[in-house]
Amino acid sequence: MTLSTASFDLGNSKPGVAANAAAVRNAVEQHLERLVATLPGVPPNLQRAVRHALLGQSKRVRPVLLFLVAEPGPGEHRAALDAGCAVEMVHTASLILDDLPCMDDAQLRRQQPATHIAFGQSTAILSAIALLSRAFGIIAELEDVPEATRVRLTSILSNAVGWEGLVAGQELDVNGREGLVGVSEIEELNWLKTGILFVAAAEMGAVLRGLEDERIEAIRRFARHFGVAFQTADDLLDRSASAADIGKDVQKDGDKVTLITLFGTSKAQLSYEEHLAKAEQALVDSRVDAAPIRELMQRLFETRRAQEQ
Amino acid sequence: MTLSTASFDLGNSKPGVAANAAAVRNAVEQHLERLVATLPGVPPNLQRAVRHALLGQSKRVRPVLLFLVAEPGPGEHRAALDAGCAVEMVHTASLILDDLPCMDDAQLRRQQPATHIAFGQSTAILSAIALLSRAFGIIAELEDVPEATRVRLTSILSNAVGWEGLVAGQELDVNGREGLVGVSEIEELNWLKTGILFVAAAEMGAVLRGLEDERIEAIRRFARHFGVAFQTADDLLDRSASAADIGKDVQKDGDKVTLITLFGTSKAQLSYEEHLAKAEQALVDSRVDAAPIRELMQRLFETRRAQEQ
Repeated sequence: MTLSTASFDLGNSKPGVAANAAAVRNAVEQHLERLVATLPGVPPNLQRAVRHALLGQSKRVRPVLLFLVAEPGPGEHRAALDAGCAVEMVHTASLILDDLPCMDDAQLRRQQPATHIAFGQSTAILSAIALLSRAFGIIAELEDVPEATRVRLTSILSNAVGWEGLVAGQELDVNGREGLVGVSEIEELNWLKTGILFVAAAEMGAVLRGLEDERIEAIRRFARHFGVAFQTADDLLDRSASAADIGKDVQKDGDKVTLITLFGTSKAQLSYEEHLAKAEQALVDSRVDAAPIRELMQRLFETRRAQEQ
Repeated sequence: MTLSTASFDLGNSKPGVAANAAAVRNAVEQHLERLVATLPGVPPNLQRAVRHALLGQSKRVRPVLLFLVAEPGPGEHRAALDAGCAVEMVHTASLILDDLPCMDDAQLRRQQPATHIAFGQSTAILSAIALLSRAFGIIAELEDVPEATRVRLTSILSNAVGWEGLVAGQELDVNGREGLVGVSEIEELNWLKTGILFVAAAEMGAVLRGLEDERIEAIRRFARHFGVAFQTADDLLDRSASAADIGKDVQKDGDKVTLITLFGTSKAQLSYEEHLAKAEQALVDSRVDAAPIRELMQRLFETRRAQEQ
């Protein structure tokens, strides 16, 4: 299977941009490590489980995207990394829960045993709650960020996670697939499962940077289409890859209704390309520095892996 | 078994105070109902599960305590109710998770089937996440409350829930009981399981009211001792009551180390009374209106039920 990024004009990429995206990813990794460094008040088993889940191999798409949209100045890196890592913690919490026996019952995640396999279900669930709670704490405590911005970021994150967001997506995925009948409903599910946290990450970057509403809206539009394309690509990958390729269980969705089961691979590929084209247009409309973001996307799709999913 | 509240001087209670505490509880119930009113974007099954868990029979100790400490003026009720209900949502989320088969494996909660019994494990877990996320959203969006106060409240709540708080308590309770060897370790566990959210509720009330640090510290001290006393009372109740009496499964802790298994009922009773006396002293030190808070406590212990636990 080939995932094209032809809709994206990569000719405009500045030299050194790829290195920048990679540098942001490295900075994110180091920052995550600091955020879950050993604390005396935390039960050791819980601590190990949190570190296992959070520090497993991943491309860190959401925090890198947030950082690239925020374009922080030299003295503002800390807040952009904090906010990005908070989103990564929320994402990781959702992965821990998605993998539970009562959900997708997956064994492998981020190139290693899923958290409940390595630490048991109770500690896995508690790790997810710890990560989720800490994410909100990090946002509340962002240094050198106005309090009005911090409450706005908290609100964005809360809405993205909650019962109209990720939680709704997982509920529909686990208990409501049989009710999905058309493209728009499947895309809505993809949006809730993946897109909504892409959008939250990008929007949080835009809010942190203090962009005006119109540009924030363009950023949201960009991230929404990017997220749906990414989830569709993931579904396509899931049918063609091996577990070793992508570092998590594959074809867990074999009995679920997806765009592919409904309309076949070529329609899914078409939907993917349409969303990618719309993402590109919105990115241009937002007038942020598009080159490193295009680079991030290209790297994601090029590797044809989705380890961070 | 008799739980004494003799340490509390109830002679100072003003007439009408009991009605006030009851009125606050009624206001909390109505506000909770509003906060989980039907929303079109929420999957119906998830919505029902959230309402089942949150609106089950409960005394609403934490939101009532927050409200009584905050002593809101006529135009400030909304924020105190919002903040209190956010704490109640966090508490409810913790109950949903505590009852899961991989944790305490309880069937009955708040006079009705536990959420995973009524809706299945996946929806129960997602309900907990929805409630937790919404709690942080409510705090971020508190109307007519300065943003600096909102971020402080978020931080208090995040720390109370996280891996040094409720989550740590549950991890130790489920996977670490065998390591507990003395009174102080058991009390630390009781503190994490119950006290910490009492303290968060009371502290949030004090912060919302804008009390100075010294009085906030006295409120924290009060709530800490009250919370430990309450948990000890709950352990005592758990050994003497029937499920019908307290509306949840009893003697689930039969094989766990508690103050009672270590030292017997009379030492636990003594510990309970000491904490109650210290709570009273701290309440006096805080110089908040103590009468309705004493009344709340008396009503709690008098009924010798712990439905909201």
